This record gives sequence, C-alpha cells and structure tokens, in this order.
Amino acid sequence: MKLYSTPATPFGRTVEVVAHELGLHEDIEVIATKVAPTNPNLEYQQFAPLRKIPALVTEEGKLIVDSPVIAEYLAARVGDTALFAQGQPSHFDVMTRYAIARGATECCVASRYEIAVRPPELRWDKWIEDQFDRVGAALTMFEATPPTSGGRLTIADISLAVLLLYLDFRFDDYGWRSRYPTLVAWLEPIAARPSFVATKAS
Amino acid sequence: MKLYSTPATPFGRTVEVVAHELGLHEDIEVIATKVAPTNPNLEYQQFAPLRKIPALVTEEGKLIVDSPVIAEYLAARVGDTALFAQGQPSHFDVMTRYAIARGATECCVASRYEIAVRPPELRWDKWIEDQFDRVGAALTMFEATPPTSGGRLTIADISLAVLLLYLDFRFDDYGWRSRYPTLVAWLEPIAARPSFVATKAS
Repeated sequence: MKLYSTPATPFGRTVEVVAHELGLHEDIEVIATKVAPTNPNLEYQQFAPLRKIPALVTEEGKLIVDSPVIAEYLAARVGDTALFAQGQPSHFDVMTRYAIARGATECCVASRYEIAVRPPELRWDKWIEDQFDRVGAALTMFEATPPTSGGRLTIADISLAVLLLYLDFRFDDYGWRSRYPTLVAWLEPIAARPSFVATKAS
Repeated sequence: MKLYSTPATPFGRTVEVVAHELGLHEDIEVIATKVAPTNPNLEYQQFAPLRKIPALVTEEGKLIVDSPVIAEYLAARVGDTALFAQGQPSHFDVMTRYAIARGATECCVASRYEIAVRPPELRWDKWIEDQFDRVGAALTMFEATPPTSGGRLTIADISLAVLLLYLDFRFDDYGWRSRYPTLVAWLEPIAARPSFVATKAS
C-alpha cells in the first residue's frame, strides 16, 4: 500500500499510528506529499481530487480517503474489531469521541492556515480565537470524561493523543498542559509507545 | 431522538434524508439550532463542544456526532446494512466516495464562511478559488464515474446529491449544471424523492 502523507499532518499521523498498532506499518510505503491550500499539487490531485492528505492507494490501485476510512480499512485488513469497538456497546461512544478529537484537530489546522498560509494583512484574530474556544471545550470534555487506560487503544484514544501532541508541536504557547492535568497524565504512556515514537513530527 | 440542526446545513440535511430513507424521521425531533463561527452558541456548546451541527441526542441522553456517525447510528438502529454497503465488496468505495462528496461540501461551506461570515476587508479570493478548484475536481471525478442508478441509495449517493443541491442553493452562479450533464441527469430523480423534497432548504 502507498500512503500519501507528511510527518507534520495530524491526520496522517493518526493513520500511521494505527498502522503501527495493527502491525501493518511494514506493508505501507509512505510517499512524502506536499499539499498547501491555494498552491495546488496537481500531480496528486490527478487521483485525490480534494488533494488532502492522507490518502491510501491499495495494491489494486484503489484510492481510499479520508483518515477515518483509511483507519477502518487497515483494521478490516487484519480482521481487527477493537480499534473501532465494532459490535461493542461502546462503539458509538468511541465514534463520537473520535469525531470530537478529530474535529478539534481540524480547528487547530484551520488556525494554522490562518497564521501560516493566509497573507498576514487578511488574518482574522477572532477566527483563531473561535477555533481555540472549540478546542478548549473539547479538551474540557475529555478532561472530565478521560479515556480509560490499559487495554487496547481505540481510534478515539489515538486521535486524542495525536491532537494533544499536535498542540505541543504547533501551538506550544496555548499551554494546554497547565490546564488539563488528567490528560497530561493519560498521554504520557501513550506518547512513549513505539507507534507514537516512530511517527513523531520534528 | 433529538436532532440539533438547521434546514440550511448540508450535513444536517444528509442526516435528515437518511432518517427519511430509513423510515425513522417520525422518531426524530429536529431542534432548530443556530451556529455561526465567531458567535458561539454557548447553550449548545454545553453538550456539543465543537458546536457544529448536526448533533443527535438519543432517548438515553447520549450525544452522537458528527454526521457520518449519526447516519451510521440510524442505520444500526433499524439493522440496515445497505446504506453503508456494510460487508459488501463496494464498502470502501462507498466510504471513499462519501468522504469526497462530504469533503467537497466542506469546501463549499468554507467558501460560504469566507463570503458571509468574515469581514469583507479580510476576504481572500484566492482561498475561495482554491476551495472551488477542489469542488470542481471532485465533480469531474463523479461525472467520470457516476453512481449507478436504481436500487437503494447509499450514503455516498445521498451525500453527492446533497452537495449538488447545496451548490444550487448557495452557489447558483458557479453553474455546475452546465458542465456536468451526467450528474444533472442522475440527480433529477433523486431530488424528486420524498426524502429530498421534505428536507429542501428554502
């Protein structure tokens, strides 16, 4: 399989962590792919019309997007049902928590575009504040209802950890660690797992 | 169940169409919910931290987000496997096409925010062009590989139809109908279905 991604993208990292956790990472060739809004990667757009990363192309040449679908595909390849809590009472709770963690990550990426892509004279500070207000509400929810530790990681756990580490990486001055001590403690052993160590953006 | 939504949101409409197609719409109370970036709906954020619509709250008081998860939940409630082509060889193709249709819809919504929410002096035309370049690439792909007609609608079909009707509703001057004749013909009987007629934004 070919995974079009880049180390800095949190959604690509989520998929790479999933691949490691499922023991599939050696079956995946990561193709470093640059995408930037307003600067189209036309070669990539030939097969990935939205030119978002990550995208997976299977051995049969089939395109699979976006990151939740790729994660589901990888789990299905190895017959794993734990990642998405398939068939378990917690399934829709896992899916909802995954959607919230991923949505909060999208807020971070939207802020990043505002700061790093948009011309400075067109920057709207209120937009960035609004995005981080949502991130804060999501972290407050996760702090109050932390994931259970131990056992297999779910996709919700992986996505939340990727979000927190992305905040460290791109928004260190946001200072989430001083406000969410339960999540700090929860993250520590997860960030030390081989799947996270191997996919660290630098 | 309570569905927090508004007639103008394409993601809420997708869920409402799904509810109709599954015969569940009479079990759902739609709570008209206003959300706008930079103008937080704090009451809604109490239980929906990202304050995005739609959100579903079940009879047991459980939050379910986002729209793909709600659609999956509704299908699971009635034991439906056709909507997501569960267990069928086409499953990941349906999921990928759904992700592309939904992603293109997100491009439209991002453009809408740029035009209708952001102060005019901070508008970046190149951003809007970039979003619509992606929409165009997605529509070109769908035009070349149109959904098969007849039989049950999949979530990919519903999402694509919602995208096309959202373009009619908000971006009539984009003129998609003059460039994608296969999609125009495909859409016509779908837009006439009771599920789409009942959920038309005006």
